[in-house]
Amino acid sequence: MRTYARMTGLYAPTLKEDPAEAELASHRLLLRAGMIRKSASGLYSYLPLAWRSLMKIEAVIRDEMEGIGAQEMLVPILTDGELWRQSGRWSAYGPELMRLMDRHEREFALGPTHEESFTDLVRNELRSYKQLPVTLYQIQDKFRDELRPRFGLMRGREFIMKDGYSFDADVEGMQKSYNDEKGAYARICERVGLRALPVVADSGQIGGDTSVEFMALADAGEAEIVYCDGCGFAADTEAARAPINLVEGEEGDLQKLETPGCGTIADLAAFLKVPEAATRKALALVDGDGKPWVCFVPGDHEMNDVKAEHAFGAYHMMSDEELVQYGLVKGFIGPIDLPEGVGSCADESLHDSAWWAIGANDAGYHYVHAKQGRDFTIGRWVDVITAKAGDRCPKCGAPLKAARGIEVGQVFQLGTKYSETMGATFADPDGVEKPFQMGCYGIGVSRMLAAVVEQHHDEHGISFPVAVAPYEVEVVPLDVNDDVVWPVASHVAEELLAAGVEVIVDDRKERPGVKFADADLMGFPYQVVCGKKAIKNGNVELKVRATGERTEVAIDEVASLLSARIASERA
Amino acid sequence: MRTYARMTGLYAPTLKEDPAEAELASHRLLLRAGMIRKSASGLYSYLPLAWRSLMKIEAVIRDEMEGIGAQEMLVPILTDGELWRQSGRWSAYGPELMRLMDRHEREFALGPTHEESFTDLVRNELRSYKQLPVTLYQIQDKFRDELRPRFGLMRGREFIMKDGYSFDADVEGMQKSYNDEKGAYARICERVGLRALPVVADSGQIGGDTSVEFMALADAGEAEIVYCDGCGFAADTEAARAPINLVEGEEGDLQKLETPGCGTIADLAAFLKVPEAATRKALALVDGDGKPWVCFVPGDHEMNDVKAEHAFGAYHMMSDEELVQYGLVKGFIGPIDLPEGVGSCADESLHDSAWWAIGANDAGYHYVHAKQGRDFTIGRWVDVITAKAGDRCPKCGAPLKAARGIEVGQVFQLGTKYSETMGATFADPDGVEKPFQMGCYGIGVSRMLAAVVEQHHDEHGISFPVAVAPYEVEVVPLDVNDDVVWPVASHVAEELLAAGVEVIVDDRKERPGVKFADADLMGFPYQVVCGKKAIKNGNVELKVRATGERTEVAIDEVASLLSARIASERA
Repeated sequence: MRTYARMTGLYAPTLKEDPAEAELASHRLLLRAGMIRKSASGLYSYLPLAWRSLMKIEAVIRDEMEGIGAQEMLVPILTDGELWRQSGRWSAYGPELMRLMDRHEREFALGPTHEESFTDLVRNELRSYKQLPVTLYQIQDKFRDELRPRFGLMRGREFIMKDGYSFDADVEGMQKSYNDEKGAYARICERVGLRALPVVADSGQIGGDTSVEFMALADAGEAEIVYCDGCGFAADTEAARAPINLVEGEEGDLQKLETPGCGTIADLAAFLKVPEAATRKALALVDGDGKPWVCFVPGDHEMNDVKAEHAFGAYHMMSDEELVQYGLVKGFIGPIDLPEGVGSCADESLHDSAWWAIGANDAGYHYVHAKQGRDFTIGRWVDVITAKAGDRCPKCGAPLKAARGIEVGQVFQLGTKYSETMGATFADPDGVEKPFQMGCYGIGVSRMLAAVVEQHHDEHGISFPVAVAPYEVEVVPLDVNDDVVWPVASHVAEELLAAGVEVIVDDRKERPGVKFADADLMGFPYQVVCGKKAIKNGNVELKVRATGERTEVAIDEVASLLSARIASERA
Repeated sequence: MRTYARMTGLYAPTLKEDPAEAELASHRLLLRAGMIRKSASGLYSYLPLAWRSLMKIEAVIRDEMEGIGAQEMLVPILTDGELWRQSGRWSAYGPELMRLMDRHEREFALGPTHEESFTDLVRNELRSYKQLPVTLYQIQDKFRDELRPRFGLMRGREFIMKDGYSFDADVEGMQKSYNDEKGAYARICERVGLRALPVVADSGQIGGDTSVEFMALADAGEAEIVYCDGCGFAADTEAARAPINLVEGEEGDLQKLETPGCGTIADLAAFLKVPEAATRKALALVDGDGKPWVCFVPGDHEMNDVKAEHAFGAYHMMSDEELVQYGLVKGFIGPIDLPEGVGSCADESLHDSAWWAIGANDAGYHYVHAKQGRDFTIGRWVDVITAKAGDRCPKCGAPLKAARGIEVGQVFQLGTKYSETMGATFADPDGVEKPFQMGCYGIGVSRMLAAVVEQHHDEHGISFPVAVAPYEVEVVPLDVNDDVVWPVASHVAEELLAAGVEVIVDDRKERPGVKFADADLMGFPYQVVCGKKAIKNGNVELKVRATGERTEVAIDEVASLLSARIASERA
């Protein structure tokens, strides 16, 4: 019979101080709790506690993959350079692809992803449409030589990834495989305790999405997203096309107002005593072909760089010198009397806006009651603004919320991109050779652990959900040498173990304060504190890490109470 | 509710023909059964069936490691070149160590083993004897750029390995950690169905062994070993010091016999009508210092190269020219009247041998009844012979058996080799800084799978033990379109699944012959064949893969019968 785990048998060197190099909570807390250690820039060891959590995340992934019929396997990390040449990525990938030569001077890459390997694997063995569909996946260390590795497990150079690849006979099949994965990914996020949103990265031409990123909501996230609590819509602010709450300027006859010093939207709105949304912002730029433009957007929205590149190519905002060169007056640009040769365009959200408050192309003057169609016309409509909280959900019209997100997974319809270039074909029912319709699906497993910590921590440390906690319960005997306290702690731990609970006992000869601090730092969901006073009443103290709630529970009841509660909280 | 696995949902492309490049049974059968595929020289993908077996092996390893308190974790595959320089292995390792530079031109190695990484991990965080012992391990892809990768999973360039490292305060602690691992390794081999012997590679000075290799017995093994069925002794033939069955020559007065053409032991033994063991073989060599020697060994034993190097340094056997130069007569060398300057020595096994039949240093003549002490003396005794079947167990005296073995694991007492060179110390009870006493422990996980196949196969394919079988039972409906057969097959599969058995159904529209052949090839331990005829009697046919035994079993009893039997056979 095995006995319960003990803190003295656990390698988890905790740190009392915050490590200077760690900006993010997850980076800081995983280091402090003795769960990870840096071995070189962007390279981390997962110590035993982190490894237990990672194994739980992997188990959830495996279970959901089995549920959709995806099959686990493993291809080598070393991938033949020849395969990368076939796909064209040997030259396209750049320095992020880690390369080496073997002793026979043959080139290899350390796989950052394995589209080539899996396409190569099946291309001579999946020969008929009858064998399709097939979805294969693996969980494996991946390598990307990031220019600036940072944020601990968030952006490392070696990281654990689940990557999967589907092979279908036609587009409909690929879409089904893709949708199966998308559903599984949403369930995986939920089961590991992550609040994550499926953010549409790209919309298909036929309808439906062709790529979705799963974004775990967290202030530390690198991506900005808007989402709808009502219908579940979510999009990157850079990609969203969300209707805005259009606020019109005042109606009236065109009037040129002296607006001294009102060179910004904030100044103008304050001067006019209207919300910024009722004003219009003019942005002067030169497009990729060298043509000057003035682009108008609502006063309370920003132009987005990615969208602007779609609209204007390799554009740049005009410098002060260029403004002068094109006859534009900084801070007072408007659509009426624009200088010769400067194009006028506006964001689509202003298409139906009648009344504008806008610069007069005259230093120190703005127009109010400028009416589109009467006083000016816009030559071209573009989609360039960044969506923001309060804009309307494009699906259901409800107000959107804004958040930051950590990309923990992505599903992608590849189509025939790899199968065509690498000559991976099958025979259709008529005997015609066709390239596979492929999908690829990735989860950042180690990053997912960091994301869980970002969502589940407080000022005292990590507060793991049961689903991915290294241990579910920590038993804390306040004095291991006490001949009343220790037997109770040991008894409770044995009972928990017998009930199938993952329990660890802090059997160190440390002060209670040290034990409490470490327990809160490591974030086991439940703590059973065994002290003399409570035991005198036949009780132990049960602390819920997430809420801080403490209750006294009878010694003989705590194991059954906890095991029932934990069973309902497992992944 | 999940349903049973189906062959149509399994990626396992079988091959009808033996692959030309595969010499070993495991290589051939794992390829043919669609379990592995080569992606480049020495680089293999593990397809879904192999992956399932590997996961089972890993689960057994994890369970046994937990049992001895070893903690699982993971260090990066990319290891900083600086660490390898500290240990001295950067230059010592040679071209087997795969190296690369990152984008900042920093050198890294792909870990072939991780002594440096683990020593580095603990050297600043395990500070006191109170924190010891600690044993850490990982299961990870390892890299060795073998000059000649071969035999499939046996000798690859990327392979799965379990490697563990123990840190102790003193030698006694290290020996306990080492013995715990040794015990666990023996149990792991047994549980995965391997007949393996712990072969002592090195004996300690204090007593007890300091390194043991676990050798799975198989004709395909690269190592030759002798072992004792009685007491469990096992040793590499190159390292064993086993007493031989000494056979004496005949007694009598020294007699010089004309032995025309008897230039070999076989000739001489036949001529004298005695066993080869009753003769003595003379081996002429030049030792590392350039001194000539004649070394005598029993007529039925070979000199062993490794042992001879211990005895003679960088020696070489004399060429015909050298024999002439030193005055020796090829085929007729003996201890009586050896030419001036040529040393005489003999294997220790001949120390107590009185009567020799041996060359007379005269072309065409041998001595019989040559008596050691009376007619000649031996100047030096060495240990140079290779042990062989029939030699006596050095522990219990029983006759040894010989076999070939595949090294699947090794345990090793490192002592302070790495801790001293890398400055990894802890404070002892007196506050004195001391280097850790370390041990290292490895299992070739992917090689272990190949070893299982070497031990468990026949002319039809693999015959997996339940412990590591990808599926425990295959249900084989002879006709999936038959409305009697299919419902029975599906029913039996559901019952097996509900009883916790890992079951796969061959739901392909293939002829029975194809299904039987694939089932035997893939080696699931039990097959439940569902055919019309047996079903008419309320039965299915149960086939035991290992024995070929077939019995009819009632449809409603087969699941409970199999689940009970399989439960007792699991790892």
